[in-house]
Amino acid sequence: MENFKPYFAVIFTSTQTANTNGYAEMAIKMETLAKTQKGYLGIDSAKNDVGITVSYWESLEAIKNWKANTEHLFAQKQGREQWYNWYNVRICKVEREYEFKLD
Amino acid sequence: MENFKPYFAVIFTSTQTANTNGYAEMAIKMETLAKTQKGYLGIDSAKNDVGITVSYWESLEAIKNWKANTEHLFAQKQGREQWYNWYNVRICKVEREYEFKLD
Repeated sequence: MENFKPYFAVIFTSTQTANTNGYAEMAIKMETLAKTQKGYLGIDSAKNDVGITVSYWESLEAIKNWKANTEHLFAQKQGREQWYNWYNVRICKVEREYEFKLD
Repeated sequence: MENFKPYFAVIFTSTQTANTNGYAEMAIKMETLAKTQKGYLGIDSAKNDVGITVSYWESLEAIKNWKANTEHLFAQKQGREQWYNWYNVRICKVEREYEFKLD
């Protein structure tokens, strides 16, 4: 914990419309693309009634660049027009972290 | 955005053991209990291969109190002994937020 270096998380929560046409393919494409971005650290994703995707980044600059990525902008537009009823994006600074692993 | 007041998020990610005995009941009990805590703002939860629960809090103090809550401590202990292979807890400051709602 002494050497903990803060990093950033984007918490994306969403609910979807009945139109899922093309969504799964785009989700895979965007996750694959995110992984190639400068400053990308990782991603966690799960979905039931609400979808939660948390992506982790080295800096706010990296998040800004990813948000403005051309292919990602196109996906965001399709998301608003077709796939999402609602979404929320939270930009967060990760200040502390701890982990448990079963022996 | 001008009047945005920072708050805090706890990102809890986990993978579970094969022993789910009592887990669902405890998850409901803890969510119900969390909602009664001072400084609690909300919760989002979804689970597939990985479980993600994000809870939102007014302050770090509120998070600290919730972590130290007696009934919650008991649940955490059971979690480590029975239900989780692995978990990770990230304490985050939410610095910005934006929302989309379908017209």
